[in-house]
Amino acid sequence: MIGLEQLIKANSSFLLKSVANGDGLSKSPKHQIAIVTCMDTRLVELLESALGIKRGEAVVIKTAGTSTDGNFGAILRSLVIAIYALDVEEIVVVGHEDCGVTQISPSMLKQKMQKRGIDKRQILKFEEEAIAWLDKVHDSEEEVKKLVDALRKTTIIPRNVPIHGLMIHPDTGEVSLLTDG
Amino acid sequence: MIGLEQLIKANSSFLLKSVANGDGLSKSPKHQIAIVTCMDTRLVELLESALGIKRGEAVVIKTAGTSTDGNFGAILRSLVIAIYALDVEEIVVVGHEDCGVTQISPSMLKQKMQKRGIDKRQILKFEEEAIAWLDKVHDSEEEVKKLVDALRKTTIIPRNVPIHGLMIHPDTGEVSLLTDG
Repeated sequence: MIGLEQLIKANSSFLLKSVANGDGLSKSPKHQIAIVTCMDTRLVELLESALGIKRGEAVVIKTAGTSTDGNFGAILRSLVIAIYALDVEEIVVVGHEDCGVTQISPSMLKQKMQKRGIDKRQILKFEEEAIAWLDKVHDSEEEVKKLVDALRKTTIIPRNVPIHGLMIHPDTGEVSLLTDG
Repeated sequence: MIGLEQLIKANSSFLLKSVANGDGLSKSPKHQIAIVTCMDTRLVELLESALGIKRGEAVVIKTAGTSTDGNFGAILRSLVIAIYALDVEEIVVVGHEDCGVTQISPSMLKQKMQKRGIDKRQILKFEEEAIAWLDKVHDSEEEVKKLVDALRKTTIIPRNVPIHGLMIHPDTGEVSLLTDG
Protein backbone atom coordinates (compact mmCIF):
# COMPACT_ATOMS: atom_id res chain seq x y z
CA MET A 1 0.00 0.00 0.00
CA ILE A 2 1.20 3.50 -0.80
CA GLY A 3 -0.27 6.58 0.79
CA LEU A 4 -1.17 10.11 -0.21
CA GLU A 5 2.32 11.34 0.58
CA GLN A 6 3.90 8.90 -1.85
CA LEU A 7 1.50 9.90 -4.63
CA ILE A 8 2.46 13.54 -4.16
CA LYS A 9 6.16 12.62 -4.03
CA ALA A 10 5.71 10.64 -7.27
CA ASN A 11 4.14 13.74 -8.81
CA SER A 12 7.15 15.89 -7.89
CA SER A 13 9.47 13.37 -9.58
CA PHE A 14 7.18 13.27 -12.60
CA LEU A 15 7.20 17.06 -12.94
CA LEU A 16 11.00 17.19 -12.77
CA LYS A 17 11.36 14.67 -15.58
CA SER A 18 8.30 15.50 -17.63
CA VAL A 19 7.78 17.89 -20.47
CA ALA A 20 4.02 17.25 -20.56
CA ASN A 21 2.06 20.20 -21.75
CA GLY A 22 -1.29 20.65 -23.41
CA ASP A 23 -0.09 22.50 -26.51
CA GLY A 24 -2.59 21.73 -29.20
CA LEU A 25 -4.63 19.35 -27.05
CA SER A 26 -8.34 20.04 -27.11
CA LYS A 27 -10.92 18.87 -24.58
CA SER A 28 -12.62 17.21 -27.57
CA PRO A 29 -10.85 13.95 -28.36
CA LYS A 30 -9.00 13.88 -31.70
CA HIS A 31 -10.56 10.56 -32.74
CA GLN A 32 -14.12 11.55 -31.66
CA ILE A 33 -14.40 8.28 -29.80
CA ALA A 34 -15.59 7.35 -26.30
CA ILE A 35 -14.40 4.12 -24.70
CA VAL A 36 -16.54 2.65 -21.90
CA THR A 37 -14.62 0.05 -19.95
CA CYS A 38 -13.79 -1.48 -16.57
CA MET A 39 -11.84 -0.03 -13.64
CA ASP A 40 -9.75 -3.25 -13.43
CA THR A 41 -6.16 -2.55 -12.40
CA ARG A 42 -4.77 -4.85 -15.08
CA LEU A 43 -6.30 -2.61 -17.77
CA VAL A 44 -4.46 0.47 -16.43
CA GLU A 45 -1.93 1.45 -19.15
CA LEU A 46 -2.76 -1.75 -21.07
CA LEU A 47 -6.15 -0.84 -22.57
CA GLU A 48 -5.11 2.40 -24.24
CA SER A 49 -1.90 0.87 -25.65
CA ALA A 50 -3.75 -2.22 -26.86
CA LEU A 51 -6.19 -0.04 -28.82
CA GLY A 52 -3.57 2.40 -30.08
CA ILE A 53 -5.14 5.29 -28.15
CA LYS A 54 -2.89 8.12 -27.01
CA ARG A 55 -3.42 11.15 -24.78
CA GLY A 56 -5.87 13.55 -26.39
CA GLU A 57 -7.38 10.95 -28.71
CA ALA A 58 -10.36 9.45 -26.84
CA VAL A 59 -12.61 9.99 -23.86
CA VAL A 60 -12.26 7.05 -21.45
CA ILE A 61 -15.05 6.08 -19.01
CA LYS A 62 -14.27 3.41 -16.40
CA THR A 63 -16.47 1.80 -13.76
CA ALA A 64 -16.76 -1.65 -12.20
CA GLY A 65 -17.44 -4.11 -14.99
CA THR A 66 -19.31 -1.73 -17.34
CA SER A 67 -22.41 -3.02 -15.53
CA THR A 68 -22.84 -0.52 -12.73
CA ASP A 69 -25.12 1.84 -14.50
CA GLY A 70 -28.77 2.44 -13.82
CA ASN A 71 -30.96 3.85 -16.55
CA PHE A 72 -29.70 7.37 -16.14
CA GLY A 73 -26.47 6.64 -14.37
CA ALA A 74 -22.94 7.95 -14.68
CA ILE A 75 -22.14 6.09 -17.91
CA LEU A 76 -25.06 7.54 -19.83
CA ARG A 77 -24.54 11.02 -18.36
CA SER A 78 -20.86 10.84 -19.30
CA LEU A 79 -21.71 9.75 -22.86
CA VAL A 80 -24.25 12.58 -23.21
CA ILE A 81 -21.48 15.06 -22.32
CA ALA A 82 -19.04 13.27 -24.65
CA ILE A 83 -21.41 13.41 -27.63
CA TYR A 84 -23.04 16.81 -27.23
CA ALA A 85 -20.20 18.79 -25.66
CA LEU A 86 -17.03 17.00 -26.79
CA ASP A 87 -17.96 15.98 -30.37
CA VAL A 88 -17.74 12.22 -29.80
CA GLU A 89 -19.23 10.32 -32.78
CA GLU A 90 -18.50 6.69 -31.91
CA ILE A 91 -18.84 4.59 -28.73
CA VAL A 92 -16.86 1.46 -27.92
CA VAL A 93 -17.83 -0.66 -24.89
CA VAL A 94 -14.89 -2.85 -23.84
CA GLY A 95 -15.42 -5.70 -21.38
CA HIS A 96 -12.83 -8.19 -20.26
CA GLU A 97 -12.46 -11.82 -19.28
CA ASP A 98 -11.94 -12.68 -15.59
CA CYS A 99 -13.89 -9.62 -14.42
CA GLY A 100 -14.15 -9.41 -10.63
CA VAL A 101 -17.72 -8.15 -10.81
CA THR A 102 -18.91 -11.43 -12.33
CA GLN A 103 -17.36 -13.43 -9.50
CA ILE A 104 -18.88 -11.86 -6.41
CA SER A 105 -22.33 -12.02 -4.91
CA PRO A 106 -24.31 -9.62 -2.72
CA SER A 107 -24.13 -12.12 0.16
CA MET A 108 -20.32 -12.31 -0.07
CA LEU A 109 -20.13 -8.49 -0.01
CA LYS A 110 -22.51 -8.29 2.95
CA GLN A 111 -20.37 -10.70 4.95
CA LYS A 112 -17.28 -8.62 4.24
CA MET A 113 -19.10 -5.44 5.22
CA GLN A 114 -20.11 -6.96 8.54
CA LYS A 115 -16.51 -8.03 9.16
CA ARG A 116 -15.39 -4.45 8.53
CA GLY A 117 -17.81 -3.22 11.19
CA ILE A 118 -20.48 -1.69 8.95
CA ASP A 119 -23.73 -1.45 10.87
CA LYS A 120 -26.27 -4.14 9.90
CA ARG A 121 -29.07 -1.63 9.37
CA GLN A 122 -26.81 0.38 7.08
CA ILE A 123 -25.99 -2.71 5.05
CA LEU A 124 -29.70 -3.42 4.62
CA LYS A 125 -30.27 0.21 3.61
CA PHE A 126 -27.63 -0.02 0.88
CA GLU A 127 -28.46 -3.50 -0.23
CA GLU A 128 -31.19 -2.84 -2.74
CA GLU A 129 -29.46 -0.05 -4.57
CA ALA A 130 -25.76 -0.59 -4.14
CA ILE A 131 -25.31 -4.37 -4.07
CA ALA A 132 -28.40 -6.14 -5.46
CA TRP A 133 -27.44 -5.47 -9.11
CA LEU A 134 -24.58 -7.97 -8.72
CA ASP A 135 -27.13 -10.76 -8.62
CA LYS A 136 -27.75 -10.25 -12.32
CA VAL A 137 -24.10 -10.09 -13.37
CA HIS A 138 -22.45 -13.40 -14.21
CA ASP A 139 -20.79 -13.16 -17.60
CA SER A 140 -18.56 -10.40 -18.96
CA GLU A 141 -19.56 -10.81 -22.61
CA GLU A 142 -23.21 -10.73 -21.62
CA GLU A 143 -22.65 -7.49 -19.70
CA VAL A 144 -21.06 -5.83 -22.74
CA LYS A 145 -23.97 -6.88 -24.94
CA LYS A 146 -26.48 -5.69 -22.33
CA LEU A 147 -24.84 -2.26 -22.08
CA VAL A 148 -24.57 -1.88 -25.87
CA ASP A 149 -28.26 -2.79 -26.19
CA ALA A 150 -29.33 -0.50 -23.35
CA LEU A 151 -27.40 2.44 -24.81
CA ARG A 152 -28.76 1.75 -28.29
CA LYS A 153 -32.30 1.71 -26.89
CA THR A 154 -31.98 5.10 -25.22
CA THR A 155 -33.32 7.66 -27.63
CA ILE A 156 -30.82 10.25 -26.44
CA ILE A 157 -27.83 8.91 -28.40
CA PRO A 158 -28.12 9.86 -32.09
CA ARG A 159 -28.84 6.88 -34.36
CA ASN A 160 -25.76 7.65 -36.48
CA VAL A 161 -23.40 7.28 -33.50
CA PRO A 162 -22.32 3.62 -33.73
CA ILE A 163 -22.02 1.64 -30.47
CA HIS A 164 -19.62 -1.29 -30.65
CA GLY A 165 -18.87 -4.07 -28.17
CA LEU A 166 -15.39 -5.53 -27.69
CA MET A 167 -13.68 -7.86 -25.25
CA ILE A 168 -10.07 -7.37 -24.13
CA HIS A 169 -7.92 -9.96 -22.42
CA PRO A 170 -6.62 -8.46 -19.14
CA ASP A 171 -3.30 -10.30 -19.39
CA THR A 172 -2.33 -9.96 -23.05
CA GLY A 173 -4.43 -7.01 -24.27
CA GLU A 174 -5.82 -9.10 -27.13
CA VAL A 175 -9.10 -7.67 -28.38
CA SER A 176 -12.01 -9.52 -29.97
CA LEU A 177 -15.14 -8.11 -31.56
CA LEU A 178 -18.50 -8.85 -29.95
CA THR A 179 -20.88 -6.46 -31.69
CA ASP A 180 -20.21 -4.18 -34.65
CA GLY A 181 -22.44 -1.18 -34.13
CA MET B 1 -12.03 10.20 -36.48
CA ILE B 2 -10.92 6.59 -36.46
CA GLY B 3 -13.31 3.71 -36.71
CA LEU B 4 -13.71 0.25 -35.27
CA GLU B 5 -11.57 -1.28 -38.00
CA GLN B 6 -8.61 0.95 -37.13
CA LEU B 7 -8.89 0.08 -33.43
CA ILE B 8 -8.74 -3.61 -34.28
CA LYS B 9 -5.84 -3.02 -36.68
CA ALA B 10 -4.03 -1.10 -33.91
CA ASN B 11 -4.60 -4.09 -31.63
CA SER B 12 -2.98 -6.48 -34.13
CA SER B 13 0.10 -4.23 -34.33
CA PHE B 14 0.16 -4.00 -30.52
CA LEU B 15 0.05 -7.79 -30.16
CA LEU B 16 2.92 -8.25 -32.63
CA LYS B 17 5.14 -5.86 -30.70
CA SER B 18 3.92 -6.48 -27.18
CA VAL B 19 5.03 -8.88 -24.53
CA ALA B 20 2.19 -7.93 -22.19
CA ASN B 21 1.15 -10.73 -19.94
CA GLY B 22 -0.50 -10.97 -16.59
CA ASP B 23 2.20 -12.94 -14.80
CA GLY B 24 1.92 -12.07 -11.16
CA LEU B 25 -0.77 -9.45 -11.69
CA SER B 26 -3.71 -9.82 -9.35
CA LYS B 27 -7.18 -8.33 -9.78
CA SER B 28 -6.54 -6.62 -6.44
CA PRO B 29 -4.37 -3.55 -7.00
CA LYS B 30 -0.88 -3.75 -5.52
CA HIS B 31 -1.17 -0.35 -3.83
CA GLN B 32 -4.71 -0.99 -2.46
CA ILE B 33 -5.78 2.35 -3.87
CA ALA B 34 -8.79 3.48 -5.93
CA ILE B 35 -8.54 6.64 -8.01
CA VAL B 36 -11.81 8.38 -8.94
CA THR B 37 -11.26 10.85 -11.75
CA CYS B 38 -12.55 12.41 -14.96
CA MET B 39 -12.95 10.89 -18.44
CA ASP B 40 -11.15 13.91 -19.99
CA THR B 41 -9.04 12.93 -22.98
CA ARG B 42 -6.09 15.02 -21.76
CA LEU B 43 -5.84 12.84 -18.65
CA VAL B 44 -5.48 9.66 -20.74
CA GLU B 45 -1.91 8.38 -20.13
CA LEU B 46 -1.11 11.60 -18.18
CA LEU B 47 -2.94 10.92 -14.90
CA GLU B 48 -1.38 7.55 -14.13
CA SER B 49 2.15 8.75 -15.04
CA ALA B 50 1.70 11.95 -13.04
CA LEU B 51 0.80 9.94 -9.92
CA GLY B 52 3.42 7.23 -10.47
CA ILE B 53 0.75 4.55 -10.94
CA LYS B 54 1.55 1.57 -13.14
CA ARG B 55 -0.49 -1.32 -14.47
CA GLY B 56 -1.65 -3.55 -11.62
CA GLU B 57 -1.17 -0.90 -8.95
CA ALA B 58 -4.53 0.92 -8.64
CA VAL B 59 -8.17 0.66 -9.60
CA VAL B 60 -9.11 3.63 -11.81
CA ILE B 61 -12.71 4.92 -12.04
CA LYS B 62 -13.46 7.60 -14.66
CA THR B 63 -16.67 9.47 -15.43
CA ALA B 64 -17.54 12.97 -16.59
CA GLY B 65 -16.16 15.42 -14.04
CA THR B 66 -16.39 13.15 -10.98
CA SER B 67 -19.83 14.74 -10.54
CA THR B 68 -22.08 12.39 -12.43
CA ASP B 69 -23.02 10.19 -9.56
CA GLY B 70 -26.35 9.91 -7.84
CA ASN B 71 -26.55 8.62 -4.30
CA PHE B 72 -26.14 5.01 -5.31
CA GLY B 73 -24.58 5.52 -8.70
CA ALA B 74 -21.74 3.91 -10.56
CA ILE B 75 -18.96 5.57 -8.56
CA LEU B 76 -20.19 4.33 -5.19
CA ARG B 77 -20.99 0.89 -6.57
CA SER B 78 -17.52 0.68 -8.08
CA LEU B 79 -15.91 1.74 -4.79
CA VAL B 80 -17.93 -0.85 -2.88
CA ILE B 81 -16.52 -3.54 -5.20
CA ALA B 82 -13.03 -2.04 -4.92
CA ILE B 83 -13.07 -2.07 -1.11
CA TYR B 84 -14.89 -5.30 -0.31
CA ALA B 85 -13.80 -7.47 -3.24
CA LEU B 86 -10.45 -6.01 -4.34
CA ASP B 87 -8.90 -5.02 -0.99
CA VAL B 88 -8.75 -1.28 -1.67
CA GLU B 89 -7.91 0.66 1.53
CA GLU B 90 -7.56 4.23 0.27
CA ILE B 91 -9.60 6.44 -2.09
CA VAL B 92 -8.26 9.41 -4.04
CA VAL B 93 -10.69 11.69 -5.90
CA VAL B 94 -8.83 13.65 -8.60
CA GLY B 95 -10.51 16.60 -10.32
CA HIS B 96 -8.92 18.89 -12.85
CA GLU B 97 -8.94 22.51 -13.96
CA ASP B 98 -10.72 23.43 -17.21
CA CYS B 99 -13.22 20.58 -16.84
CA GLY B 100 -15.77 20.53 -19.67
CA VAL B 101 -18.56 19.57 -17.31
CA THR B 102 -18.29 22.90 -15.47
CA GLN B 103 -18.63 24.84 -18.72
CA ILE B 104 -21.86 23.52 -20.17
CA SER B 105 -25.48 24.01 -19.25
CA PRO B 106 -28.58 21.86 -19.68
CA SER B 107 -29.99 24.42 -22.14
CA MET B 108 -26.85 24.26 -24.30
CA LEU B 109 -27.06 20.47 -24.35
CA LYS B 110 -30.77 20.55 -25.22
CA GLN B 111 -30.10 22.82 -28.20
CA LYS B 112 -27.42 20.46 -29.46
CA MET B 113 -29.73 17.48 -29.02
CA GLN B 114 -32.43 19.17 -31.06
CA LYS B 115 -29.91 19.93 -33.81
CA ARG B 116 -28.94 16.26 -33.89
CA GLY B 117 -32.58 15.34 -34.45
CA ILE B 118 -33.43 13.97 -31.00
CA ASP B 119 -37.20 14.05 -30.48
CA LYS B 120 -38.36 16.91 -28.25
CA ARG B 121 -40.43 14.64 -26.02
CA GLN B 122 -37.42 12.39 -25.56
CA ILE B 123 -35.29 15.36 -24.55
CA LEU B 124 -37.86 16.36 -21.95
CA LYS B 125 -37.98 12.77 -20.69
CA PHE B 126 -34.23 12.71 -20.17
CA GLU B 127 -33.90 16.23 -18.90
CA GLU B 128 -34.56 15.71 -15.23
CA GLU B 129 -32.30 12.72 -14.76
CA ALA B 130 -29.61 12.96 -17.40
CA ILE B 131 -29.00 16.69 -17.85
CA ALA B 132 -30.41 18.68 -14.92
CA TRP B 133 -27.47 17.82 -12.59
CA LEU B 134 -25.25 20.07 -14.73
CA ASP B 135 -27.07 23.08 -13.34
CA LYS B 136 -25.34 22.51 -10.01
CA VAL B 137 -21.84 21.98 -11.43
CA HIS B 138 -19.74 25.11 -11.88
CA ASP B 139 -16.39 24.62 -10.21
CA SER B 140 -14.04 21.64 -10.42
CA GLU B 141 -12.56 22.03 -6.93
CA GLU B 142 -16.04 22.29 -5.48
CA GLU B 143 -17.05 19.07 -7.24
CA VAL B 144 -14.10 17.19 -5.77
CA LYS B 145 -14.94 18.43 -2.28
CA LYS B 146 -18.62 17.55 -2.76
CA LEU B 147 -17.79 14.00 -3.86
CA VAL B 148 -15.28 13.47 -1.03
CA ASP B 149 -17.91 14.70 1.47
CA ALA B 150 -20.68 12.59 -0.05
CA LEU B 151 -18.52 9.44 0.01
CA ARG B 152 -17.42 10.17 3.59
CA LYS B 153 -21.04 10.56 4.63
CA THR B 154 -22.10 7.20 3.24
CA THR B 155 -21.91 4.71 6.03
CA ILE B 156 -20.90 1.95 3.63
CA ILE B 157 -17.24 2.94 3.30
CA PRO B 158 -15.29 1.91 6.43
CA ARG B 159 -14.19 4.87 8.55
CA ASN B 160 -10.55 3.78 8.37
CA VAL B 161 -10.48 4.03 4.57
CA PRO B 162 -9.17 7.57 3.96
CA ILE B 163 -10.77 9.60 1.15
CA HIS B 164 -8.51 12.30 -0.27
CA GLY B 165 -9.19 15.07 -2.77
CA LEU B 166 -6.63 16.25 -5.34
CA MET B 167 -6.57 18.48 -8.39
CA ILE B 168 -4.48 17.73 -11.46
CA HIS B 169 -3.60 20.17 -14.21
CA PRO B 170 -4.73 18.65 -17.54
CA ASP B 171 -1.80 20.18 -19.45
CA THR B 172 1.16 19.64 -17.13
CA GLY B 173 0.01 16.87 -14.79
CA GLU B 174 0.85 18.98 -11.75
CA VAL B 175 -1.08 17.80 -8.71
CA SER B 176 -2.23 19.85 -5.72
CA LEU B 177 -3.83 18.68 -2.50
CA LEU B 178 -7.39 19.76 -1.73
CA THR B 179 -8.41 17.51 1.16
CA ASP B 180 -6.27 15.12 3.16
CA GLY B 181 -8.60 12.32 4.21
